[in-house]
Amino acid sequence: MKFTRFTVNAEVYTGVITDGAIKEIKGDIFGDWEYTGQTFSQSEVKLLAPLEPNQIIGIGANYVSKVEDLPGELPEMPVFFFKPTSSVIGPEEDIVIPEGINQVKFESELAIVIGKEAKNVPESEVLDYVFGYTVGNDVTAPQYFHQDGHWTIGKSFDTFTPLGPVIETELDPFNVNVEAKLNEVEKQNSATELMIIPIRKMVSYLTNVMTLKPGDVILTGSPVGAELVGAGDVIECEIKEIGTLRNTFVAAREIVKTC
Amino acid sequence: MKFTRFTVNAEVYTGVITDGAIKEIKGDIFGDWEYTGQTFSQSEVKLLAPLEPNQIIGIGANYVSKVEDLPGELPEMPVFFFKPTSSVIGPEEDIVIPEGINQVKFESELAIVIGKEAKNVPESEVLDYVFGYTVGNDVTAPQYFHQDGHWTIGKSFDTFTPLGPVIETELDPFNVNVEAKLNEVEKQNSATELMIIPIRKMVSYLTNVMTLKPGDVILTGSPVGAELVGAGDVIECEIKEIGTLRNTFVAAREIVKTC
Repeated sequence: MKFTRFTVNAEVYTGVITDGAIKEIKGDIFGDWEYTGQTFSQSEVKLLAPLEPNQIIGIGANYVSKVEDLPGELPEMPVFFFKPTSSVIGPEEDIVIPEGINQVKFESELAIVIGKEAKNVPESEVLDYVFGYTVGNDVTAPQYFHQDGHWTIGKSFDTFTPLGPVIETELDPFNVNVEAKLNEVEKQNSATELMIIPIRKMVSYLTNVMTLKPGDVILTGSPVGAELVGAGDVIECEIKEIGTLRNTFVAAREIVKTC
Repeated sequence: MKFTRFTVNAEVYTGVITDGAIKEIKGDIFGDWEYTGQTFSQSEVKLLAPLEPNQIIGIGANYVSKVEDLPGELPEMPVFFFKPTSSVIGPEEDIVIPEGINQVKFESELAIVIGKEAKNVPESEVLDYVFGYTVGNDVTAPQYFHQDGHWTIGKSFDTFTPLGPVIETELDPFNVNVEAKLNEVEKQNSATELMIIPIRKMVSYLTNVMTLKPGDVILTGSPVGAELVGAGDVIECEIKEIGTLRNTFVAAREIVKTC
């Protein structure tokens, strides 16, 4: 099932995409919901990020370039970081490069959406707590990484977490490729089997630390090939089974000018 | 005004403390609310954390021990970090030391509660966006700091962010002391003027990065004197004008045993 959020005439709706049409639903996608009977065509709506995350957790440097490079022994502690929910935008929205810098990095990622409260979950049961998957772009300004290793500011600017286009609930996350095209040229394209910390281990580890909640989003890391880009560049993050998340980079100044 | 959340017979209420009694209110403390007419005595309620934060942002190493030690020039980029909202507990709840370690650190802090959406706010206007202040304990397991400098896991365990006992809306944050007593012995006691990055600068900086939202909590750093403590220790974090936030440290194993 493909869940979506969208606007029509400034009204926000939630829906399910079926046979190219969007059927409106009402309720809590993680709990009880029902069809309202109203249907929209995809051409008349503007898609939003498919959820308003409760929290966003990312994992650092989580891909190798080929299976042979996977480490025999996993790192004892993965690098996790949080991104603020205020950094979320949807498909086709502009990613704003902060004032004072000219470039930021795109990072195409498989994003896990947690559907049930999860604490101390063994690896074998992790997928029972996953509601679905979307595509995320973990936009990053490495210029704002702190010299002592903290990534917080460099990951937190408004517009730095595009999500979408939909939440796909029927994905096999071990059998997809995470791709990115920059100005229509392929830059990233890796199977998720190239993750250093695989999904089950990553989520299980997190639930041994903290209680995950419905609406928590976990960005599972970006394949090799991410690059610094500038204003005017267009990035398409894609997982074929979910869809394409397309955004354009703009300079902060251009925004200010149009206000 | 002192805002509080509390339970009576497993029901959750919001209230305002006046003359020792708690008057129940209904609505959004950041927007429209009204008194319900119901009043509770403090002895019949169990206080909760005074809010369910939207997000929690902390600042690292932000106090000197005496005014003469304040740096002439401020660091270009403060160390900020996020804590998960799932780590919040209220007064008198147990702080659980994670399995595998014996000690964690307490850090008594002045916590700012944001009341209005805040973006690009100049220092002079920061206080207009503050709803009020509470006491926070930024519990930390430095054993779980990543060797590359990331603090995420070491700050994220469940029960690692006690908040309370109330949100005081009428505080002068520049004229209070942040204190901590460990097993009734004073360990921290510093005026907020000993902050390296003062409140106005800290919040203004954050709003130049990200949009702060109502319910965002900013932990403004801990005075010198924080220590590693173990199971059985009792910590009282206090700002006299707000109240005392008292919690007991317990080992993870004790919890498991009682389940």
